[in-house]
Amino acid sequence: MSITVVGSVAFDSVETPSGRYDRKLAGAATYFALAASFFTDVRVIAVVGEDFGPEEEAVFRGRNIDIRGIERAPGKSFFWEGAYLDNLNEAQTRNTELNVFASFEPKIPDAYRDSDFLFLANIDPVLQRRVREAMPGVKLVAGDTMNYWIKDHRAPLLEVLKGLDVLLINDTEARMLAGNNNLLQAARGVLKLGPQTLIIKHGEYGATAFFSRTSFTANSTSEAHTPFRAPALPLEEVVDPTGAGDSFAGGFFGYLASQSELTPAVFRRAMFYGSVLGSYACERFGTERLQQLSRKEIDDRFGLFRELTHLD
Amino acid sequence: MSITVVGSVAFDSVETPSGRYDRKLAGAATYFALAASFFTDVRVIAVVGEDFGPEEEAVFRGRNIDIRGIERAPGKSFFWEGAYLDNLNEAQTRNTELNVFASFEPKIPDAYRDSDFLFLANIDPVLQRRVREAMPGVKLVAGDTMNYWIKDHRAPLLEVLKGLDVLLINDTEARMLAGNNNLLQAARGVLKLGPQTLIIKHGEYGATAFFSRTSFTANSTSEAHTPFRAPALPLEEVVDPTGAGDSFAGGFFGYLASQSELTPAVFRRAMFYGSVLGSYACERFGTERLQQLSRKEIDDRFGLFRELTHLD
Repeated sequence: MSITVVGSVAFDSVETPSGRYDRKLAGAATYFALAASFFTDVRVIAVVGEDFGPEEEAVFRGRNIDIRGIERAPGKSFFWEGAYLDNLNEAQTRNTELNVFASFEPKIPDAYRDSDFLFLANIDPVLQRRVREAMPGVKLVAGDTMNYWIKDHRAPLLEVLKGLDVLLINDTEARMLAGNNNLLQAARGVLKLGPQTLIIKHGEYGATAFFSRTSFTANSTSEAHTPFRAPALPLEEVVDPTGAGDSFAGGFFGYLASQSELTPAVFRRAMFYGSVLGSYACERFGTERLQQLSRKEIDDRFGLFRELTHLD
Repeated sequence: MSITVVGSVAFDSVETPSGRYDRKLAGAATYFALAASFFTDVRVIAVVGEDFGPEEEAVFRGRNIDIRGIERAPGKSFFWEGAYLDNLNEAQTRNTELNVFASFEPKIPDAYRDSDFLFLANIDPVLQRRVREAMPGVKLVAGDTMNYWIKDHRAPLLEVLKGLDVLLINDTEARMLAGNNNLLQAARGVLKLGPQTLIIKHGEYGATAFFSRTSFTANSTSEAHTPFRAPALPLEEVVDPTGAGDSFAGGFFGYLASQSELTPAVFRRAMFYGSVLGSYACERFGTERLQQLSRKEIDDRFGLFRELTHLD
């Protein structure tokens, strides 16, 4: 089944201990779409400026990603500049220019309307909600957000959370959203806000899924409400953590969308695929590694993650 | 097979967000011995002062722990006072009194000399080495250390590391010992210092084992050199993290000592038992939870950890 993703398609300038790059194609929707494209058809809704040219288009076309929903507007694309110098787990933002994103009005191409899966990447919750309402036929909706919306745009964010099947955020965001420093209590607090499933990403330590009683993964066994933890691989070199969380989301949601049934076992494998894509994303600068990845490499690392965590 | 452990038997005063206690039985060797006692015979080498009375003795006797190697000396036992107010993962030390530990000369009872397993808990590496040399017949030696010895007593510590089969330390200590911030590179650096197996404890995120080529867990399959990660359970309330690392070590080493063969599968189960004991230790103040634990509860949580991490 196909996924529609709405979010940023942007340019990033990033500095890490391994080096730096300037104004390369990036953005949450880009990382998500590349990662999900290894599993299913992906359609992107975003806005870009005049700096988005044939080279950037080729990145999407190279993975057969539908970009009819990427609107071209006068001006420059969203731009982010950041660094990970002291701590590879947390970016320091040096500059953010919304540019064409400041007046983004998502338009959904008719060709996208039969999508069964919808991913609301990290953008203004007002826009997330608008896209969600414009696609009433979707079967499963997942979303992301960040500290900025949690702190200063709580009311529209709470509206979005009510309609989410899966929310993906990191430890800090979960604690902030629930106002509770204990991770398990924070998870329970967030689940009360609406999402049936909450995936908390722990950076280099992997990610944990928490389930509400009405989660789509619930079944009659005791497993239904046990959290599930997917590992992350200790990497030789974390070249660039940018986009790792979005790549996790893409691998996770892409695999879910590729399956005919959403069972607890499918959900668990989806978490592992999320970790696999997140780990590959860090191995080179920007989207480089995702552009050159193969399904065989993905499945090899899936096997490695099993070895890393399984008793037998 | 029986384990001899050398380390501190002490009194702690601790403050956490859940409350506080004053001068309760604690110390690395105490937590280790209690945790390991669920799997095998444990013998303790330590020194205590006149404040160690029948109440403290009863804690060891209640778990059939051999304390003939706990020497009584004039004065007070080792005392530590600490708090976990801002961060449950890291203690702030308020006061340390070495007391009788300042002049500790470990003496090994003859009855301990047939021990096959030796655990060198976190004490002066000069003492760790002395005990190691006094027990040449042991088959497997594991040890712990801390930032203080890594920074200011590096030379004797390096001597100890050369003779260790398994070193258990936390992320910060591994990075400090190797002088490398990347966890995988730090692990490789530490393995070059001598230990065949390195277990890095990640607090609430579990622990990862790294293996050298000569590790006792090595076999002919590809699994031999893949790291192995055991989870930690997201807990409803971390009442007191004191002793969690020592309890991990006790569960891990105790299970290893209880098995007739040291295969990779046994090693993996030992990591899980380590996590189980570490997680129980946090549920109540001091050693309370370990004193009241049952083997059934341990195995139930082992099953929960399997559910938490396994694909099927």
